[in-house]
Amino acid sequence: MRMKRVDIMKVGVIGIGITKFGEIWEQGLRELLLDAQLRALNDAKIDAKQIDSLFTGNMIAGLASGQLHIGAMAAENLNLNKPSVRVEGACASGSLALRQGIAAIESGSADIVMASGVEKMTDISTEQVTTALMGAGDEELEGFNGLTFPGLYALLASAYMKEYGLKREVLAEVSVKNHFHGARNPYAQYQSEITVDTVLNSTMVADPLTLFDCSPITDGAASIILASEKTAKKMGAEVYITGSGLATDTLSLARRKSLLRLDAGINAAQSAYKQAGITAKDVSFAEVHDCFSIAEIYAVEALGLAKQGEAAQLYTSKQTYFDGKKPVNTSGGLKACGHPVAATGIKQAIEATMQLRGEGGKRQVKGATTGVTYNVGGSGGTACVHVFKKMK
Amino acid sequence: MRMKRVDIMKVGVIGIGITKFGEIWEQGLRELLLDAQLRALNDAKIDAKQIDSLFTGNMIAGLASGQLHIGAMAAENLNLNKPSVRVEGACASGSLALRQGIAAIESGSADIVMASGVEKMTDISTEQVTTALMGAGDEELEGFNGLTFPGLYALLASAYMKEYGLKREVLAEVSVKNHFHGARNPYAQYQSEITVDTVLNSTMVADPLTLFDCSPITDGAASIILASEKTAKKMGAEVYITGSGLATDTLSLARRKSLLRLDAGINAAQSAYKQAGITAKDVSFAEVHDCFSIAEIYAVEALGLAKQGEAAQLYTSKQTYFDGKKPVNTSGGLKACGHPVAATGIKQAIEATMQLRGEGGKRQVKGATTGVTYNVGGSGGTACVHVFKKMK
Repeated sequence: MRMKRVDIMKVGVIGIGITKFGEIWEQGLRELLLDAQLRALNDAKIDAKQIDSLFTGNMIAGLASGQLHIGAMAAENLNLNKPSVRVEGACASGSLALRQGIAAIESGSADIVMASGVEKMTDISTEQVTTALMGAGDEELEGFNGLTFPGLYALLASAYMKEYGLKREVLAEVSVKNHFHGARNPYAQYQSEITVDTVLNSTMVADPLTLFDCSPITDGAASIILASEKTAKKMGAEVYITGSGLATDTLSLARRKSLLRLDAGINAAQSAYKQAGITAKDVSFAEVHDCFSIAEIYAVEALGLAKQGEAAQLYTSKQTYFDGKKPVNTSGGLKACGHPVAATGIKQAIEATMQLRGEGGKRQVKGATTGVTYNVGGSGGTACVHVFKKMK
Repeated sequence: MRMKRVDIMKVGVIGIGITKFGEIWEQGLRELLLDAQLRALNDAKIDAKQIDSLFTGNMIAGLASGQLHIGAMAAENLNLNKPSVRVEGACASGSLALRQGIAAIESGSADIVMASGVEKMTDISTEQVTTALMGAGDEELEGFNGLTFPGLYALLASAYMKEYGLKREVLAEVSVKNHFHGARNPYAQYQSEITVDTVLNSTMVADPLTLFDCSPITDGAASIILASEKTAKKMGAEVYITGSGLATDTLSLARRKSLLRLDAGINAAQSAYKQAGITAKDVSFAEVHDCFSIAEIYAVEALGLAKQGEAAQLYTSKQTYFDGKKPVNTSGGLKACGHPVAATGIKQAIEATMQLRGEGGKRQVKGATTGVTYNVGGSGGTACVHVFKKMK
């Protein structure tokens, strides 16, 4: 159908569901996804039949479980024969599922949509996972030559630290803060606090990044149910998505214009902010992609929470804690909450929703009205940003 | 934004590009995709910068090339940093990319979209391809127990032949007709005619299906450029997509209600016809998913070109040839044109566009006004149908 723009986008969040993140031995890929789906339906208080369309993010099941075609699986789980599509954009797959769900509602083809992300990563060896994840980079230019993701982000960290004088112990503060939050999040993989020394003294993975700079390998799933503004209002939804930004960049670091920033992240943020009619000043909190500690530094700068090269100040002044001026990763981030790749983008959306609903428990951000999520694929080949608003 | 429905959907096809299908040794995954993308841009006579959004279907590159994150690659190929997403629904991945492209235009987030499909399948062994393709089925119920796709479709063929008395030599007519068309299609993998005896006397793959009942392993890529009705009209487009239907079913055959039909195909067709405001009688020709000969029988029945159990008549009376009453697979189908999995759905759309533009050459359907494409994932876990109309 043809349509005309009336005002900025508003898509309601009517249900959220998330599994425990971690090494989940008692559930396979299908059961993990189903678990999150049922929790979301329960939260939304709707019947599965009310869902018009499903989008599911998944990255490595083809390699880790021999299972592709996850779209059909997601529908079958709920005994539905509705339109259901798998989307993949490496570690940003979850946000892409969310974005396609929004598009389905905006296009008028669906009124209620389920967007999910699922990843089962602990059934194969660490070497196999590392190889599978390298599919997010440039196989010909990077993977074939032996680069892995810790190595790619170590190159970014080295370039940034040299250019802006970021100190090693300040970089470590990212992980310390995220573990502090994880310790206050019941669904996080690691619910223990750490210190700067923990980070500095842990095993070197790729200089300068140590084990505690790196997000872990994780099983998990997350589902979110969206509805058109009209339906969401009728159902009493408190939280609405008002901006969605997506941008891409070269797969390989070698072809980037700069190693000091992720242009896809900057472009996605600007696009989402513009659509939502906000600026960085309006952001109450952010859930960002800290696959490695340095990635959070790039994220807060891409989101405009700090100027280029100046993110360190946020960490030395402890502003990114849940009770600080600019809370970042109250879920514990990828570092402490865990990083079941394609589930991460949906988890970020769920954390944003929980914070805006006032369900943040011991990590609740007081007076939060606007949250943003920032999800990255690969070393920045894809970035997807969403803006969440409390409207009640 | 909010929008209101004005009338049925009309999205214009402003450019098409397809590589030669076959064993393409001189191009890798990236180059194949780029080749199709550039051909489509050339056909549309637009600059890459005019593209607002990209959707790319791919199924097995993670397994065959170690490369995921194809969305970013598709944008990088054209030096774009625009939104770009990979979608996967097994062998229906191409149609899903097309459908998501339509949704992007209908949602108002894009005016011009590129939808592509690419698959590089000949770089690994036949055994590895067969295993990778099995990701389209139910890994736990089917793949783990040794079933492969020839086996799954052999089960369907056996059930159908027993129930409806379909004769072996009539089933072979599907491949004979598709090779006849392939011999008249310059981009087809196999451009040679065969006889019923060729099919009956070829190597048994999975009883009753022989080698010539099975589509081949193929490299290839295809791209299509879509635009909003307004922009497409301005650019003089002749062909418009007026219906898009997508439905799912269980991954495994064991959980289906019947083995005699593909319910996802029936539901997708009805949904697309309804949106386009047509019935089966309006269909001038169909491009359908003949991954195995029996699949075309199910397809023509799902599309309503024959009643359930009566498709044989279409083949004994030779009606499905390009100059018959109900032309099917004028491209040569998956059998003769080749089946680079995720490229197939886009190839079907390109063949439909060529026929409606009158560019069908030696296989041109005379007076064609309405074409449908029917693309299946797995053994029917996903089915996606599109309706194409000539409007000039």
